[in-house]
Amino acid sequence: MYEDKNQHWGVTIRNITNRVSRKAGMMPGSLVHVGEKRTEKPKITIIDYDRTNYHEKTVDDVEECFPFKDSSTVSWINIDGIHQVDIIEKLGKHFGLHPLVMEDIVHTSQRPKMEDYDHYIYVVLKMLWFSEEDADVKAEQVSIILGKGFVISFQEIEGDTFNSVRERIRNSKGRIRTMGADYLAYALIDSIVDNYFIIIERFGDIIEELENKLIDDPNPETLQSIHDMKKEMIYLRKSVWPLREVINGMERTESALFQDTTFVFLKDVYDHTIQISETIETYRDILSGILDVYLSSVSNKMNEVMKTLTIIATIFIPLTFLAGMYGMNFSYMPELGWKWGYPAVWIINITIFLSMYIYFRKKNWL
Amino acid sequence: MYEDKNQHWGVTIRNITNRVSRKAGMMPGSLVHVGEKRTEKPKITIIDYDRTNYHEKTVDDVEECFPFKDSSTVSWINIDGIHQVDIIEKLGKHFGLHPLVMEDIVHTSQRPKMEDYDHYIYVVLKMLWFSEEDADVKAEQVSIILGKGFVISFQEIEGDTFNSVRERIRNSKGRIRTMGADYLAYALIDSIVDNYFIIIERFGDIIEELENKLIDDPNPETLQSIHDMKKEMIYLRKSVWPLREVINGMERTESALFQDTTFVFLKDVYDHTIQISETIETYRDILSGILDVYLSSVSNKMNEVMKTLTIIATIFIPLTFLAGMYGMNFSYMPELGWKWGYPAVWIINITIFLSMYIYFRKKNWL
Amino acid sequence: MYEDKNQHWGVTIRNITNRVSRKAGMMPGSLVHVGEKRTEKPKITIIDYDRTNYHEKTVDDVEECFPFKDSSTVSWINIDGIHQVDIIEKLGKHFGLHPLVMEDIVHTSQRPKMEDYDHYIYVVLKMLWFSEEDADVKAEQVSIILGKGFVISFQEIEGDTFNSVRERIRNSKGRIRTMGADYLAYALIDSIVDNYFIIIERFGDIIEELENKLIDDPNPETLQSIHDMKKEMIYLRKSVWPLREVINGMERTESALFQDTTFVFLKDVYDHTIQISETIETYRDILSGILDVYLSSVSNKMNEVMKTLTIIATIFIPLTFLAGMYGMNFSYMPELGWKWGYPAVWIINITIFLSMYIYFRKKNWL
Amino acid sequence: MYEDKNQHWGVTIRNITNRVSRKAGMMPGSLVHVGEKRTEKPKITIIDYDRTNYHEKTVDDVEECFPFKDSSTVSWINIDGIHQVDIIEKLGKHFGLHPLVMEDIVHTSQRPKMEDYDHYIYVVLKMLWFSEEDADVKAEQVSIILGKGFVISFQEIEGDTFNSVRERIRNSKGRIRTMGADYLAYALIDSIVDNYFIIIERFGDIIEELENKLIDDPNPETLQSIHDMKKEMIYLRKSVWPLREVINGMERTESALFQDTTFVFLKDVYDHTIQISETIETYRDILSGILDVYLSSVSNKMNEVMKTLTIIATIFIPLTFLAGMYGMNFSYMPELGWKWGYPAVWIINITIFLSMYIYFRKKNWL
Amino acid sequence: MYEDKNQHWGVTIRNITNRVSRKAGMMPGSLVHVGEKRTEKPKITIIDYDRTNYHEKTVDDVEECFPFKDSSTVSWINIDGIHQVDIIEKLGKHFGLHPLVMEDIVHTSQRPKMEDYDHYIYVVLKMLWFSEEDADVKAEQVSIILGKGFVISFQEIEGDTFNSVRERIRNSKGRIRTMGADYLAYALIDSIVDNYFIIIERFGDIIEELENKLIDDPNPETLQSIHDMKKEMIYLRKSVWPLREVINGMERTESALFQDTTFVFLKDVYDHTIQISETIETYRDILSGILDVYLSSVSNKMNEVMKTLTIIATIFIPLTFLAGMYGMNFSYMPELGWKWGYPAVWIINITIFLSMYIYFRKKNWL
Ligand SMILES: [Mg+2]
Ligand SMILES: [Mg+2]
Ligand SMILES: [Mg+2]
Ligand SMILES: [Mg+2]
Ligand SMILES: [Mg+2]
Ligand SMILES: [Mg+2]
Ligand SMILES: [Mg+2]
Ligand SMILES: [Mg+2]
Ligand SMILES: [Mg+2]
Ligand SMILES: [Mg+2]
Ligand SMILES: [Mg+2]
Ligand SMILES: [Mg+2]
Ligand SMILES: [Mg+2]
Ligand SMILES: [Mg+2]
Ligand SMILES: [Mg+2]
Ligand SMILES: [Mg+2]
Ligand SMILES: [Mg+2]
Ligand SMILES: [Mg+2]
Ligand SMILES: [Mg+2]
Ligand SMILES: [Mg+2]
Ligand SMILES: [Mg+2]
Ligand SMILES: [Mg+2]
Ligand SMILES: [Mg+2]
Ligand SMILES: [Mg+2]
Ligand SMILES: [Mg+2]
Ligand SMILES: [Mg+2]
Ligand SMILES: [Mg+2]
Ligand SMILES: [Mg+2]
Ligand SMILES: [Mg+2]
Ligand SMILES: [Mg+2]
Ligand SMILES: [Mg+2]
Repeated sequence: MYEDKNQHWGVTIRNITNRVSRKAGMMPGSLVHVGEKRTEKPKITIIDYDRTNYHEKTVDDVEECFPFKDSSTVSWINIDGIHQVDIIEKLGKHFGLHPLVMEDIVHTSQRPKMEDYDHYIYVVLKMLWFSEEDADVKAEQVSIILGKGFVISFQEIEGDTFNSVRERIRNSKGRIRTMGADYLAYALIDSIVDNYFIIIERFGDIIEELENKLIDDPNPETLQSIHDMKKEMIYLRKSVWPLREVINGMERTESALFQDTTFVFLKDVYDHTIQISETIETYRDILSGILDVYLSSVSNKMNEVMKTLTIIATIFIPLTFLAGMYGMNFSYMPELGWKWGYPAVWIINITIFLSMYIYFRKKNWL
Repeated sequence: MYEDKNQHWGVTIRNITNRVSRKAGMMPGSLVHVGEKRTEKPKITIIDYDRTNYHEKTVDDVEECFPFKDSSTVSWINIDGIHQVDIIEKLGKHFGLHPLVMEDIVHTSQRPKMEDYDHYIYVVLKMLWFSEEDADVKAEQVSIILGKGFVISFQEIEGDTFNSVRERIRNSKGRIRTMGADYLAYALIDSIVDNYFIIIERFGDIIEELENKLIDDPNPETLQSIHDMKKEMIYLRKSVWPLREVINGMERTESALFQDTTFVFLKDVYDHTIQISETIETYRDILSGILDVYLSSVSNKMNEVMKTLTIIATIFIPLTFLAGMYGMNFSYMPELGWKWGYPAVWIINITIFLSMYIYFRKKNWL
Repeated sequence: MYEDKNQHWGVTIRNITNRVSRKAGMMPGSLVHVGEKRTEKPKITIIDYDRTNYHEKTVDDVEECFPFKDSSTVSWINIDGIHQVDIIEKLGKHFGLHPLVMEDIVHTSQRPKMEDYDHYIYVVLKMLWFSEEDADVKAEQVSIILGKGFVISFQEIEGDTFNSVRERIRNSKGRIRTMGADYLAYALIDSIVDNYFIIIERFGDIIEELENKLIDDPNPETLQSIHDMKKEMIYLRKSVWPLREVINGMERTESALFQDTTFVFLKDVYDHTIQISETIETYRDILSGILDVYLSSVSNKMNEVMKTLTIIATIFIPLTFLAGMYGMNFSYMPELGWKWGYPAVWIINITIFLSMYIYFRKKNWL
Repeated sequence: MYEDKNQHWGVTIRNITNRVSRKAGMMPGSLVHVGEKRTEKPKITIIDYDRTNYHEKTVDDVEECFPFKDSSTVSWINIDGIHQVDIIEKLGKHFGLHPLVMEDIVHTSQRPKMEDYDHYIYVVLKMLWFSEEDADVKAEQVSIILGKGFVISFQEIEGDTFNSVRERIRNSKGRIRTMGADYLAYALIDSIVDNYFIIIERFGDIIEELENKLIDDPNPETLQSIHDMKKEMIYLRKSVWPLREVINGMERTESALFQDTTFVFLKDVYDHTIQISETIETYRDILSGILDVYLSSVSNKMNEVMKTLTIIATIFIPLTFLAGMYGMNFSYMPELGWKWGYPAVWIINITIFLSMYIYFRKKNWL
Repeated sequence: MYEDKNQHWGVTIRNITNRVSRKAGMMPGSLVHVGEKRTEKPKITIIDYDRTNYHEKTVDDVEECFPFKDSSTVSWINIDGIHQVDIIEKLGKHFGLHPLVMEDIVHTSQRPKMEDYDHYIYVVLKMLWFSEEDADVKAEQVSIILGKGFVISFQEIEGDTFNSVRERIRNSKGRIRTMGADYLAYALIDSIVDNYFIIIERFGDIIEELENKLIDDPNPETLQSIHDMKKEMIYLRKSVWPLREVINGMERTESALFQDTTFVFLKDVYDHTIQISETIETYRDILSGILDVYLSSVSNKMNEVMKTLTIIATIFIPLTFLAGMYGMNFSYMPELGWKWGYPAVWIINITIFLSMYIYFRKKNWL
């Protein structure tokens, strides 16, 4: 059920740490895209706002982003596509990003982490969603740069969980337009984490289905599904577990980029990451239990098969022996001439049959 | 035995973290009720007391609670029903609750936690009880706001473990009337935790029954029960484990809302949460052991079945072969003409039978 | 082997955390005896001593203990029987014990713990002994109050491990008469912990027996014994594990009730608790290994059974088939007329038999 | 597949902690080579550079290295071959290395570690590579001495992962020529860690192959391969796990040998060690799952075998019994004379056959 | 292979925590020898040295050791035999040892530990060696007292790992004659730890043999050996694990008894204890894997047995049935009269045989 095909809009979660070795031996800070190969031009969108104003535009040339670095408004630059490293490099140089940060942005095998570079904070994490199409979890690496008055987000491909944030900015809904860039960064992370719950619940449903199948009709495919789910949990956990540290690190940072009012929101998203991690552990425990039940139901089935064989064989083998005895061709076999010989054999047979039946009943095999 | 139906007065413990995703993409602090759908009007009760006075009333309009915020007495406002979010919102605004707190109150998937907002403390935990009706644990989220001179408790539905506290206030029994709001908050938490012991003991009885069944008559349903109990333990643990931190956090808080004399009582309830957690771990260990015994008893049964088959087959197959030999129709078979041929076959049969019997006796198969 | 009867002088270790729920809903600090029901009058003994003087008496009225609170000598009040809560209450009130401490003293489900109430220290732990009579571990809750110049010990029933301490006081043996009440409290705890070693060694012997049985004659009862021992270890661990913290807490306390010279003795008993805990873990590991060996020996036995069946069946089934062929009654069966037909069948039979035998020999099945 | 031969250019990873005992009883600081025996002369190479100058030479006499100790340029002395301990000793004495450091350099069983000796830092770790030739991981101990203005690296044999670093120095590529000796030390460690990713990915491929085999055609060799991979993971982990502490120690050191700008690079390589460790844990988890699937597929196969036997035996044994009955030679067997007796037996046979067939269908055995 | 006999020169490692209970109820600080009973007189040896002088003598009377307490040279007093407690008591009193220290010296069940008594340091650990004679690990408790200018070592029996230290002192080899008593204490511990590597490697060889047996010819004895090795690991670990803390405690002590130059040597022996602990964990993991392979190879064998039976039975049972049909004695059985009836049965038999053969081939059972 959980196939491993790379889709046009993301990679399956199981591949997210693959092909890291492509860069072995390269200079630290080398900008080399490691991830799914793509050819389309990256899409750059700018949303610029403050309490009263709001502008949104898509730009072709990355240099159009440069003025927003020092604007007094909150500026959100979103890049969909990181495979054209020269764009990342230009942007990174203007915004003063460390070469190692740029390297990590274009290298899609990062473990979720938070790094504080004084004048900006770098956060990298995995955006996940459940693709119903091929019943698998898709993953995309998202890098977020939080600077003074700006947020830059880098995604591998178009399509994300940020639309609700965009809507709230556009419609001036809630507090987002009255808060700073740090709140925007929080809102983006929150929307990514919220989406994890959907995956978690989808897996919850699949596990429930597995449990039902287990009772109704366990078969080797059930086992394969248990194993697949276990693996999904292992990979999911790799994306979620480090997130706790990431958000905890943001809460405890002494960076001037964060306003005090934002910390309570970070605490809220931190709660969510803990809830998700715990649910993953719960699912792992339940899957272990399901495996135990499966293995034991296989044993029980075997028991039933063996009982059937044993009952039939144990009843008929002695009867067949008896019939064999009177099928012998010895000249002198007195019983053969008796009038009641043949009925007597039937009576013996029925007696043996019945006593065996009672015996198996008593042993609870029938 | 442990079915999964939602009852009119609570949800089964296994559902308490479900349907979180309903809120994905919403603004942080959005008041959306996540939990069992209900239509009845929430019930608001106020108990107001000090050393000498005592008033109790049920109010229709939430605004009737507002004066109690600054009364010098201890005021306990209890809300049964959190599905009407406008009531929560009005109350929350008057009492100065943070939007994220209000969001958590109406969102019934919270992990137990304690948050200190300086002028009030927010505690959320699970009230559990064992429903004998459908032999399952029911859970309800309880939020407690402890402010200066007041406690607000939010429950999902009517019916709780607080009656003993109410009685003690009414009858001025014990020290409760002489203590502050912090002691009241403690008393509520203590009554919830005391109830956990009942569940724990009920599970203890079920596990003991399982062990007895294991010896008397293990069958596939036993396995299913073991698996179900294991799962109950996993979910129970999710409710109890974080409670240790919650109460520990209250003990260590430097909030002015707590009087020194209350800490020793918090320590007492902390002891209880540790006892409960340890018992859950103990039960998990014992259930693992029960599973091992079950699996091995299945193997032992199989062994017994196979032995029966093997003994019967091993004795009669050679005898049948011999009978078959003398059933052949060759013209020249000298034995057939012998007078003692037929009795000789019987003697050989009995000899084989007896030596096999002795052999199996020696091998301890009989 | 490990039966579950309550004896007249203690309860089996497995019951020590049971029936806690009896108190759910009660006022904190309610004095309710939770434990084995008893009717006899509690026995109160006072031992009062200093370097030169020594008095010992049994009193009927608890008020006779009161003068010893402020005597300059070391006074040890021992109460055997905590079911008469009024006695505990009177004593507790005079000696200034907190209601929660009194509650814990009469509630026999306490997890071992140490609490520092400035003018006294409260320690609760489990006294264990191995009852050879019914081959089970018995447990009794012991509470120790260490105050300035006095020690009060509460036991559930008469009979304890303190006789050696009493002897040393009576005979002025060793340093006990020259030291304070803190050393007396240490000496009591040390005598309880020393007794744990006896249980540990008794279990060591039982485990060794189990291992021997495993090799000589494994059977389903062996499995039940392994499971029982595993459970004993789980319960034993619950009594011993928290003791580490208890004694560590006493070592690190800054209470004026302890003299500097006593700490090195506490360190010694701390070493013992670690040794005991480690041995319990060792036994758990070994029991897991024993279970593995047991399960695998069951599989090996099955293998042997199946081989026997397979060898017999595989040899005789083809032979029986051949005999059956020449037992057919076709009119035209040329072999039947041959003179050497019948001996030929025997030769074929013996050939098949021998080649099968060689084949199984090669396969190492014989 | 993973054989254990020592190759001419390294030892298999499983041997890296062997033969430590050779030194038992020797004086601490004794220079005794513990590792693969070799006879060729060690090769000493010096690369000396600063922002503008660059020299590279191979020297025959270790004393030619001495002047570089105090040169103002960055000097990298690389020794291939540590079996000639007198060379190590001469060099160590001139550069002021502690005897215990020299001992560790020539003793190839070191656990990765970092030691700060004020005027130099000693780092020892394992250089690993995957030998496609014999499908096994090869390991070599690399010691790095970082002093003021110099780096000394000791390898067991020629051939390493440092070529990319050499190229960057030669071609003045990147920042390496502008940075100090500390950056050079970092670059060497980074090139070693980068190589771990290649091994990790190779193992990822092997595990994927194993999973495919598991579905297509599981056999005892699959089991052996799972066990082998598990062991590889255990040994790999022993090389990688301590590396986290090593690099963390370098990051946190207060040594004057490190410039501030280097720490961000150490943080980057630290990320890599965490990623590698986590992937190893992931692989271990997956291998456990694979083992479960394998074991259960063996059980399933057995089930299928037993079902086949049971179906055949259960159908034909009663039929054979019936045939045996009418093969008896009693004089008085009325059915034998009936005209429709023989067809009736066939009809009974077919009826039994069909009802058995339907029965097994219903039981889902067919 | 791993028998449990006590030898004349030590006890098997598995017994080292036994018979602790002998002392239950005794006064703390009671000098009672707990260990193997012995009668010979303890042997007391004194080695006294400084940079220029060296004396070695064996004394009969313990009082001859007393002058060395305050000599300005380094004095090493070694006692072989601790069963004569009066000797220990005299020595202990003169050198100012605490009664609890003396108690621990003669009580051979100590867990390795380090205690700082200001004017001396007490270290107790296990000296282990592999007895090839009865293929088992022998253990002996060694206590070391480090005071100002003296070291006292207590062993259970003659024979130890200290000869290399003695040689270095005698021959003035290395730095030992130029260093203080703290370095001597280190040298003794180092020689004990070095010996652990020999045991570790011996076990490594045994595990390798086990793995080979597993592939060549697994049998129930293999299982017993796995279980025995697992137990050896458990006991070995109990001796080695606490050693980490012991040496770490020595490194971090602020005692004036240690010179700064000694700490780097303690760090070296600390490295060794970590290496040994890790190898023990590695061996435990590998033994688990070996057990899995063993269990699964038993299942595989069973599968093979069952396949053999099933193939033979499934082929011949239908054939035998057919033969039985034509062995019936019905008067009217037209086939019996047919000329080609008998050959037809053979053709049917061969057809059934061949199609079964092809069927099993396809199923991969042949
Ligand atoms: Mg995916
Ligand atoms: Mg990976
Ligand atoms: Mg990776
Ligand atoms: Mg990086
Ligand atoms: Mg999967
Ligand atoms: Mg959850
Ligand atoms: Mg389960
Ligand atoms: Mg969930
Ligand atoms: Mg929230
Ligand atoms: Mg419920
Ligand atoms: Mg359940
Ligand atoms: Mg209490
Ligand atoms: Mg309890
Ligand atoms: Mg158990
Ligand atoms: Mg198993
Ligand atoms: Mg309990
Ligand atoms: Mg008991
Ligand atoms: Mg038991
Ligand atoms: Mg012990
Ligand atoms: Mg074992
Ligand atoms: Mg090693
Ligand atoms: Mg070393
Ligand atoms: Mg290698
Ligand atoms: Mg391997
Ligand atoms: Mg799996
Ligand atoms: Mg012991
Ligand atoms: Mg001691
Ligand atoms: Mg020994
Ligand atoms: Mg070993
Ligand atoms: Mg052993
Ligand atoms: Mg393995």
